[in-house]
Amino acid sequence: MAQKPSIPKGTRDFGQIEMARRNYIFNTIKNVFTLYGFQQIETPAMENIGTLMGKYGEEGDKLLFRIQNSGEKAALAPEKGLRYDLTVPFARYVVQHREEIAFPFKRFQIQPVWRADRPQKGRYREFYQCDVDVIGSDSLVGELELIQIVEEVYKRLGIRVCLHINNRKILAGIAEVIGAPDKMIDITVAIDKLDKIGVEAVNAELMERGLEAEQVAKLQPILNLSGTTAEKLTALKTILASSETGLKGVAELEEVFQLLEDVDCRLNIELDLCLARGLNYYTGAIFEVKALDAQIGSITGGGRYDNLTGIFGLPGVSGVGISFGADRIYDVLTELDLFPKELLSATQVLFATFGAEELHYALKWAKELRARNIAVEVYPEPTKMKKQMGYADDKQIPYVAIVGGNEMETNTVMLKNMLTGEQKQVTLKELLVIGNW
Amino acid sequence: MAQKPSIPKGTRDFGQIEMARRNYIFNTIKNVFTLYGFQQIETPAMENIGTLMGKYGEEGDKLLFRIQNSGEKAALAPEKGLRYDLTVPFARYVVQHREEIAFPFKRFQIQPVWRADRPQKGRYREFYQCDVDVIGSDSLVGELELIQIVEEVYKRLGIRVCLHINNRKILAGIAEVIGAPDKMIDITVAIDKLDKIGVEAVNAELMERGLEAEQVAKLQPILNLSGTTAEKLTALKTILASSETGLKGVAELEEVFQLLEDVDCRLNIELDLCLARGLNYYTGAIFEVKALDAQIGSITGGGRYDNLTGIFGLPGVSGVGISFGADRIYDVLTELDLFPKELLSATQVLFATFGAEELHYALKWAKELRARNIAVEVYPEPTKMKKQMGYADDKQIPYVAIVGGNEMETNTVMLKNMLTGEQKQVTLKELLVIGNW
Repeated sequence: MAQKPSIPKGTRDFGQIEMARRNYIFNTIKNVFTLYGFQQIETPAMENIGTLMGKYGEEGDKLLFRIQNSGEKAALAPEKGLRYDLTVPFARYVVQHREEIAFPFKRFQIQPVWRADRPQKGRYREFYQCDVDVIGSDSLVGELELIQIVEEVYKRLGIRVCLHINNRKILAGIAEVIGAPDKMIDITVAIDKLDKIGVEAVNAELMERGLEAEQVAKLQPILNLSGTTAEKLTALKTILASSETGLKGVAELEEVFQLLEDVDCRLNIELDLCLARGLNYYTGAIFEVKALDAQIGSITGGGRYDNLTGIFGLPGVSGVGISFGADRIYDVLTELDLFPKELLSATQVLFATFGAEELHYALKWAKELRARNIAVEVYPEPTKMKKQMGYADDKQIPYVAIVGGNEMETNTVMLKNMLTGEQKQVTLKELLVIGNW
Repeated sequence: MAQKPSIPKGTRDFGQIEMARRNYIFNTIKNVFTLYGFQQIETPAMENIGTLMGKYGEEGDKLLFRIQNSGEKAALAPEKGLRYDLTVPFARYVVQHREEIAFPFKRFQIQPVWRADRPQKGRYREFYQCDVDVIGSDSLVGELELIQIVEEVYKRLGIRVCLHINNRKILAGIAEVIGAPDKMIDITVAIDKLDKIGVEAVNAELMERGLEAEQVAKLQPILNLSGTTAEKLTALKTILASSETGLKGVAELEEVFQLLEDVDCRLNIELDLCLARGLNYYTGAIFEVKALDAQIGSITGGGRYDNLTGIFGLPGVSGVGISFGADRIYDVLTELDLFPKELLSATQVLFATFGAEELHYALKWAKELRARNIAVEVYPEPTKMKKQMGYADDKQIPYVAIVGGNEMETNTVMLKNMLTGEQKQVTLKELLVIGNW
C-alpha cells in the first residue's frame, strides 16, 4: 500500500463547495469590473527571474519560488520564478505590449500567486489575487470609478464596509510642514497607533523615532483633527498652507469627494490620515476597505502610483488600482453566512431507478430537462434505493425523481422533495416547470 | 533605459480579446458540465515531487518543472514540481479526500499545466487542460453522458465533429485470437496506418514487428471490416468468438450504442478499431473527437480506466473521463470564424466629453446605465475628441455618447453609431433601451 498522498505545505485543494463559493466571489467581481469597461488579461505563472528580482525588497527576493531549468541546455537558459504578485507582471505586460494597448488601459487580472512564506493560519504559499487597474491617465475619474466598484461589489455580496482614504501627498506635506520631510514613514507608523495607544504614547514614540519636541508639538493639531470630512479638509488646508505638495493632496481628495457626491455614492468613506500602505510605491490616493461586521483587517486596498512601469523602461505613466482579497472576502461571507444557499446544489434533480429499464427511461427524461437548461443527474446504476438517496443527500440535490415499474406505466416519476420529504407523482410536463413550484 | 521585458520561452500573455474568447470556450464547456451534475475542483500548481515522478514514463519525468526549495530548511523540505497534467493530481485528490467525496464522483477541472518540452508551433510550456471525469462506477452511463457532453459542447460552439470510439478490450481480444497477446501495441500501431499506407504495407510492417505469416493472415478479416457499426460489431463477434475479453469489449460498445440510440444522440460516431490512445492506461472505451471542417487532429479525447487511483493506494476504482483541448478548439473557432462577434466589445457605450462640466454630467448618466447592467465607459479626461473617438475604435465600442454644452442644456447626448457613422440626439430614457434599437 502506497503512502497516503498529500500536498505541499501552505497549498490547498479546493473541493466543489469551496469552488462554487470562490466562483461566486470572482464572478460577482468580474461582472462589476466589466460594467466599468475593465477587461481581463492573464500572464504566465513563470516570469524570467530578472523581471521579478529586486521588485519586492530583499525579503521579497527570498520569498520567490525559483524554477530549476531542466534538459541539456539548462545552464544556458535564463532562470525563471513563479509570479509573486500581479502588479509586477502587469507592469511588464504594459511595457512589452505598449504598441498594441489602447490607453487609458483598463485591465483586471485574477490569477494565483506564489510566495515561499512560512505558512500559518490565513497565510498560504499559493493564493489568488484579484487586481483591477487603469493605467495611462492621471484623471481622478480613475479613483472615482474604483470607489464605485468597491461600493457595487460589496453591495452585491451583501457585506457592509467602510472605505478608508488618504493621500500620500498629504503625508508628505505633514512631514514637510513640521520640518521633518525625511521622517514621513516614522510619523505615519506612529500615528497609525493613535486609536490603540492614545496620544501620549504616540508622542513618546515620535520622540523615540528622532522627532524633536517642537516638531511633535506642531503635529498635535493633526492628531486632534476631528469633525466631518469637509471640516477635516478645511483644517488641513490651514495646517498644510506652506506645503505645495500637501495642498495638492488636499485638492485631489476634495475633487474625489466632489465626484463621489455628483454620482450620489452611498459608500461609507472615512478620511483616515493614518492610512499609509506601501508608501514607497503610491504617489496619490491610498485606499483600504474594511468589513464593518467582521474583525478581519483590510479586504480590499490600493492606490495611485505614478511610475509603475518605470522599472521596465517606460517612465511617467500614471495609474490607479485596487486589489480584492478573495480569501478574506471568502472568510467574511462564511462568518456572516452570506453565501447564497443555492450555490451548494447545482444539480436540481437526481433520477433514482429500480432497474435497467427504468434507468433507460430516466436517461430520456434527463435529456428533456437538460434541453431546458435544468441541471440533472441520473444515478448510473439501479442499485439500492438507500444508496441513491444518500448520494442526493451528500450532494444536497433538492429533488429526487424515483422511477419504478408503476411510474413507467403511467409515464410519470415519483418526485421527492428532499427537504420536506413530501412525495408527488408528476408528468414530464410538470417536472419541466420545477423551478416555479 | 531598461531592457525590453520578455516572458519565458513557450509561455504566453493573453490579452483582452484572447481572454474573452478563451472565457467563451471555458464557459460553454462549464455550462454543459454543470447540466450533467459535474462539479469543479482545483488543485495546487505544485505537487510533492513524489506524487508526480514515475507517472509519465521516463520521458515525462524529464519534462517536469521542479521548484527549488528556499529558506534555511531547504534541504529538509520535500521537493516540489509543477503539475504536468490534471489526471495525476485528480487521482491524488480522490485518494486524499476519499472520506469526504460522494461517489460516483463527478468532477471537472480547468487549470494550467506545465511541461519543459521544446516549445514549437502549437506546443507550449504552459497550457490549460479541461478535464471531466466520473469515478467510482463502472456503469456505461458514464460513457453515454460524456458522449452527450461532447455532442452538446460542439453544438453550442458550432463546430461539426466526428467522435471516434474503440474499446481496449477489443484490441486485446484481437491480439489474443491471432495468437499474439503480447503484441497488442505493435498491432495497433501498424493498423493505425491503414488509411495512409494501405493493407500491403501494413502487413509488411506487422511482419517486421515480429508477427508470423499465419498471424497476419488471421488479422485480414479485421483489416477488411466494413459496413455500418452494427455490421462491424456483428462481424467482430464472430472474429473474437474465442476471446472472452474481446467479446466483453464488443458487448460494452453495443450497450453504449444502445444507450445513445435511447437518448436519440445525433453526434457523428465512428467505430474505429485503429484508435488506441494511451494503451497502458485505458481499460475500456477509448474516445477521440475530430473537427470535420479543420485539419487539426484530435480536439477532445479520453476513455475508461480501471485503476487510476491504484498508484496512490486505492485500487479497483473504475472511472471514465475526457479532456477538451482548449488551445486547439480556439484555433478551430478562429479558422472557421465561429467566435461570436459581440465578444470583442464588452463595453456598449463610451461617453466622450468637451469639458470638465460635461465629464461630471457623463458620469451621472454612466451610473444610470450601469444600474441597468449596461457596460459603459466615460473617457476620463475631456481631451481632443479625435483621441476619445480613437479609443472607442481601438476597443471596438459600438456607440459613443458625445456630450457638449448643447447636450447638457437639452438633457441629451449625441449618440454616434461607430459602425454606420449615424448620429442621433437621444434622452437618457432612449439611451437606456439601446439594446433594443
